[in-house]
Amino acid sequence: MTHRAALDSLGLETGKRARLHRILHRHGLCNGTALFLPYDQGLEHGPRDFFANPTASDPRYVLDLAVEGAFNGVVLQVGLAEKYYGGYAGEIPLILKLNGKTDIPYDGEALSPVHAGVADAVRLGADAVGYTMSVGTPAQAEDFAAYRTIRADAQRLGMPLIVWASPRGSAIEAKGGKDTFFAVDYAARIASELGADVAGVDFPQPGTRTGLKPPYDQDFGAQHAIDAVVRSANRTLLLVSGGERAGDEAMLDKARRTMDAGATGLIWGRNIWQRSHTESLRFVERIQEILVKYPSPSHTPGQG
Amino acid sequence: MTHRAALDSLGLETGKRARLHRILHRHGLCNGTALFLPYDQGLEHGPRDFFANPTASDPRYVLDLAVEGAFNGVVLQVGLAEKYYGGYAGEIPLILKLNGKTDIPYDGEALSPVHAGVADAVRLGADAVGYTMSVGTPAQAEDFAAYRTIRADAQRLGMPLIVWASPRGSAIEAKGGKDTFFAVDYAARIASELGADVAGVDFPQPGTRTGLKPPYDQDFGAQHAIDAVVRSANRTLLLVSGGERAGDEAMLDKARRTMDAGATGLIWGRNIWQRSHTESLRFVERIQEILVKYPSPSHTPGQG
Amino acid sequence: MTHRAALDSLGLETGKRARLHRILHRHGLCNGTALFLPYDQGLEHGPRDFFANPTASDPRYVLDLAVEGAFNGVVLQVGLAEKYYGGYAGEIPLILKLNGKTDIPYDGEALSPVHAGVADAVRLGADAVGYTMSVGTPAQAEDFAAYRTIRADAQRLGMPLIVWASPRGSAIEAKGGKDTFFAVDYAARIASELGADVAGVDFPQPGTRTGLKPPYDQDFGAQHAIDAVVRSANRTLLLVSGGERAGDEAMLDKARRTMDAGATGLIWGRNIWQRSHTESLRFVERIQEILVKYPSPSHTPGQG
Amino acid sequence: MTHRAALDSLGLETGKRARLHRILHRHGLCNGTALFLPYDQGLEHGPRDFFANPTASDPRYVLDLAVEGAFNGVVLQVGLAEKYYGGYAGEIPLILKLNGKTDIPYDGEALSPVHAGVADAVRLGADAVGYTMSVGTPAQAEDFAAYRTIRADAQRLGMPLIVWASPRGSAIEAKGGKDTFFAVDYAARIASELGADVAGVDFPQPGTRTGLKPPYDQDFGAQHAIDAVVRSANRTLLLVSGGERAGDEAMLDKARRTMDAGATGLIWGRNIWQRSHTESLRFVERIQEILVKYPSPSHTPGQG
Amino acid sequence: MTHRAALDSLGLETGKRARLHRILHRHGLCNGTALFLPYDQGLEHGPRDFFANPTASDPRYVLDLAVEGAFNGVVLQVGLAEKYYGGYAGEIPLILKLNGKTDIPYDGEALSPVHAGVADAVRLGADAVGYTMSVGTPAQAEDFAAYRTIRADAQRLGMPLIVWASPRGSAIEAKGGKDTFFAVDYAARIASELGADVAGVDFPQPGTRTGLKPPYDQDFGAQHAIDAVVRSANRTLLLVSGGERAGDEAMLDKARRTMDAGATGLIWGRNIWQRSHTESLRFVERIQEILVKYPSPSHTPGQG
Repeated sequence: MTHRAALDSLGLETGKRARLHRILHRHGLCNGTALFLPYDQGLEHGPRDFFANPTASDPRYVLDLAVEGAFNGVVLQVGLAEKYYGGYAGEIPLILKLNGKTDIPYDGEALSPVHAGVADAVRLGADAVGYTMSVGTPAQAEDFAAYRTIRADAQRLGMPLIVWASPRGSAIEAKGGKDTFFAVDYAARIASELGADVAGVDFPQPGTRTGLKPPYDQDFGAQHAIDAVVRSANRTLLLVSGGERAGDEAMLDKARRTMDAGATGLIWGRNIWQRSHTESLRFVERIQEILVKYPSPSHTPGQG
Repeated sequence: MTHRAALDSLGLETGKRARLHRILHRHGLCNGTALFLPYDQGLEHGPRDFFANPTASDPRYVLDLAVEGAFNGVVLQVGLAEKYYGGYAGEIPLILKLNGKTDIPYDGEALSPVHAGVADAVRLGADAVGYTMSVGTPAQAEDFAAYRTIRADAQRLGMPLIVWASPRGSAIEAKGGKDTFFAVDYAARIASELGADVAGVDFPQPGTRTGLKPPYDQDFGAQHAIDAVVRSANRTLLLVSGGERAGDEAMLDKARRTMDAGATGLIWGRNIWQRSHTESLRFVERIQEILVKYPSPSHTPGQG
Repeated sequence: MTHRAALDSLGLETGKRARLHRILHRHGLCNGTALFLPYDQGLEHGPRDFFANPTASDPRYVLDLAVEGAFNGVVLQVGLAEKYYGGYAGEIPLILKLNGKTDIPYDGEALSPVHAGVADAVRLGADAVGYTMSVGTPAQAEDFAAYRTIRADAQRLGMPLIVWASPRGSAIEAKGGKDTFFAVDYAARIASELGADVAGVDFPQPGTRTGLKPPYDQDFGAQHAIDAVVRSANRTLLLVSGGERAGDEAMLDKARRTMDAGATGLIWGRNIWQRSHTESLRFVERIQEILVKYPSPSHTPGQG
Repeated sequence: MTHRAALDSLGLETGKRARLHRILHRHGLCNGTALFLPYDQGLEHGPRDFFANPTASDPRYVLDLAVEGAFNGVVLQVGLAEKYYGGYAGEIPLILKLNGKTDIPYDGEALSPVHAGVADAVRLGADAVGYTMSVGTPAQAEDFAAYRTIRADAQRLGMPLIVWASPRGSAIEAKGGKDTFFAVDYAARIASELGADVAGVDFPQPGTRTGLKPPYDQDFGAQHAIDAVVRSANRTLLLVSGGERAGDEAMLDKARRTMDAGATGLIWGRNIWQRSHTESLRFVERIQEILVKYPSPSHTPGQG
Repeated sequence: MTHRAALDSLGLETGKRARLHRILHRHGLCNGTALFLPYDQGLEHGPRDFFANPTASDPRYVLDLAVEGAFNGVVLQVGLAEKYYGGYAGEIPLILKLNGKTDIPYDGEALSPVHAGVADAVRLGADAVGYTMSVGTPAQAEDFAAYRTIRADAQRLGMPLIVWASPRGSAIEAKGGKDTFFAVDYAARIASELGADVAGVDFPQPGTRTGLKPPYDQDFGAQHAIDAVVRSANRTLLLVSGGERAGDEAMLDKARRTMDAGATGLIWGRNIWQRSHTESLRFVERIQEILVKYPSPSHTPGQG
């Protein structure tokens, strides 16, 4: 098990550190780990994601769940944040998602347009902003240009920046797909190089090796891969996304490996709310039984 | 019949709430429902739309009709608003349409360029602005970028934002077309995720199932579909567009189902003014006989 | 013969009304009609247009002609305006053309880039600005974006905006070409919807029906077509362009039909200056014999 | 021999006139003619242009040559101007070239990106700025947009604007190439229409007639062509570029015809510095023997 | 051996000269030569570059190495600079790399998007900024536009600008590739023409002649080529990049030729840190044994 650094040893500026402290040490398990509830699937995939549990179509249901389940934060697009977060302000940290897209048009040149700015996050009392970076997309010039503005505004306003480092597009498909060890490892490093405070990545699937070039074409184990990904992120805190709903035990196994590797936590949506309310909370409890074992301090002992 | 929420429970900021109150509770039936008269077809389709009733080519005719028919608002592009609305200011709310396009060039990458800003709406005394979003268009990055500016200005100026969430473009055609349950349901959700105060959509045609993917490939009834669309819009008020002129009874049936689903109202143009003046007013009366049955309060009882 | 409205009944703001008053009631025949002399062909077509009358290559010749012929205004690009208009300032109104292109590259995605702004027009003492809109071009998003800036600046500075509503590009060619009744009628309406104060269009050729869709595929007469076009422009004053040089009687016939339809006047260049000085002035005299018969007042009787 | 107008009769604003006076009447032959030394070939073609005379690779050599040869100005890109012009400031006027490109990528959509602004020219003490316009390029919208900014800044700052009106791109190639009478004549007119104070063009080659359309497909003589080009430029002063190195007598013959036509001078680089120092100065002397015969006054007799 | 000019004779403005003085005369060998350690490969190539020496994945390791090895500066992207440079501020000069890209998408239209600005470099206490220019790329208009902003900001803020002049893209491949004498020579000249203070280029490979045009298709020696490249850069200081790891003796031979040619130094990354710590420092020592022989003064004798 890798040791995770204290929040005060990550080179963070004051405002970012204050807000991350609030998220990691004043909410959830208050132990420096994180469990986030993403709720932007209505834009990314459409209402089809709510057919499994139609009540999850109502943002109030999901916000209530985030509070009841003691999540560290909920992720919303600006529209839902403006119309719903007012009723939950202060109870659960808001991560305002700044960009996003539909899954309707052709995705080979994946790009998530920006819908809101860091100033909107400040106005709405959010504690972090989120940006989806389409790693490796042919549209990377446009993606990086949009990201640059957000990174600079987040720096200026002291707002923590969470980057979903998501390998996407035709070139990624040609090189093995979006969740290979190669793709996820590169994505984590990019988030770090380009100034993310927190990075969200998929759990790497080292089994997929078709199309991979050396040195990624070797036979790596899952733990080896996630360990490397956390190292590639270095001082950028790492979260692992949940993706489509999968079996509970497989998910919990990923959670354990993720935390063992030194990651900060998980950002799971459909695996949580695509089931009944009771089942959701029971599953959250099982996740938290894992997270509680991986505390990290806010302050390095002996420092101010 | 779904209960519609009071205007004060939708998370609206002050200016938006004041202007929507004026539209919904001081005009039309003054009961929280809405009947809007769109008049931007001269740009979208050209003068051919006026051949059925040539007097409708004259904006004064249509503005008079809006006043006489006790509509909740009339929708104009900036040119007609500047030259004609002065004579009707205060009598009928103006919704300034901010973007639009001709139907001459190829529409596979549909995009409606912006012609005016929210500040123009303020200058002209409008009570809302309108934006056509081409949901699913390959040009969605450009569309969302333009929309973002308008959403932010509308927020800053307290101006209600009506989004025509219009599935369009080659990818939509490949997935069943612009008025499937899938397309309309997704469109309503996007309007809500991205901060529309009011969304205008086509009535979903659940019968069209070619090209649809699960779970939308099942056999849904019309009422089931429109109910779901209103839920997807959640706190974004929903309007159903009229589209091309169709049979009166079919249109009135749609109106009933729309209001039963909990929508706020209708936005019908050609079905109104592509007939004689007398017939127009008589048809408006029949619509209002429906709307009067679906009142919703401005204030939640017992709140300020 | 259609009655043309007084200048004070067109919904114009003060500055625009003052400048249009100067153009229409203090120059030319001073009777509310207009005869403009366009001189941007050096950019649009190149010096080849001057081979018929080489002295017309000299801007001084054309400016002298505009003064001698008592035109209502002369249309120049910024370069000629800056270097030549100083010698004629006050004698003849200047319409500063703000965009334009060469005819060298492929024209299927026609777009006229902007060369000067409304502030340049103010600086140079112009009384109006001109913008060529490529109606129906595949580049309409870019065209409308450029136009929007100019419309807004013209509004802010009280500068009348003349829009050459010119159907152009591959989609227009596929739908019958640039001077069908369909294309010209749509163009006039777009100018009006988008806020032009004056629109310049080609004379519609109802005889061309190949590729036209209903209801434009019927057999309309020339007078019916131009009448409809003036109606489509509604409160936007209509001018008919001259285009390539044609026979004098055919041109004068168009002038009569144009004025009968209720248009404000003509904007003819090559038909004027592609002949000797004496002939030019003689032809202008014949045009003015027509225009004098179609006066319109500056003020509605009994209004301030 | 055509009479060239005095500098005070060209409609120039004060700052532009002052700086052009300095260039044309205080340097070189001080007689209103101009001989400019362009030195941006290192960017446009690369170091290969210096293989014929390797010492010309050193900007100091070329600046010394400009001073010794009594040129009216030297043309530099911003990098060389910043690092070298300081040592020659005041001795030889600087024309700061504001755009330029390499000749490496495909040139069918020729476009010269902008590298510096008019404010850089002011800062560096330049007396004029230069812009290469790719006349007829498919990228003309982008070219004109960049040019517009520079034209406006030059107007605002009183900085003379020299436009290299260079026909380029696939459409020009399809219409006979870059140095036909058609292309050069059109280019000169565009410079004038769009506000250049000085235009630089290639000497027209009327012999090339393949692909030309009427009226340019006739048999014109060289003098007829250059006379027409100077007329097309009207109040924009005309310079003829030298292009690749050619025979001395042919070059001097072009110089004579150019000046006979009423042009202001020459802008020759490779024909000067692609030979030994002594030969360069001897050739410059021969050019100046021509230029001295074509004086033009700074002031119109009897004017202030 | 070519004589290198003193820092005060390069036409540098005050702030740039002060910061370059700090880099070249207060760090490293303090003799006017430079050895830089680039560390942006995590973005440009991904973590695969760290498999040879996994500890090099940790930015602290590399920053320690830069200090221990007495480098003249370390090159970081903004993310690593923000999170790590604080612990090394003042000990080793920072060169903030302002643009960069992944190597995932197709590279035929190579372009490195900008991630940070010169103001970020000032904020972080950097002593220079770095920009990768994709020389000859089909995207050169976009590349030059981004570069222009950075050049202007660097001028305004007195920040030295290091340009990686990197021939890239399909046209370069068609003309012999990225490291021919032609490509590198042109690249060095472009950096100089466009205002770089320091240029980083690959060592030219004159042996590659396929696809080259005269005069570069001749048989040049390696020393001839690098001599010419340094001349093409003229007052822009020249650095040679190391590229992929190669044999030590071959690398040191390049270093000697580079310095013999009058270059300022080397910018080597993978050849340094893709080996063990001890080996790295030993290799650095061998490089410095070369650099120490090529001192250049900060001040020209007898000047202030």
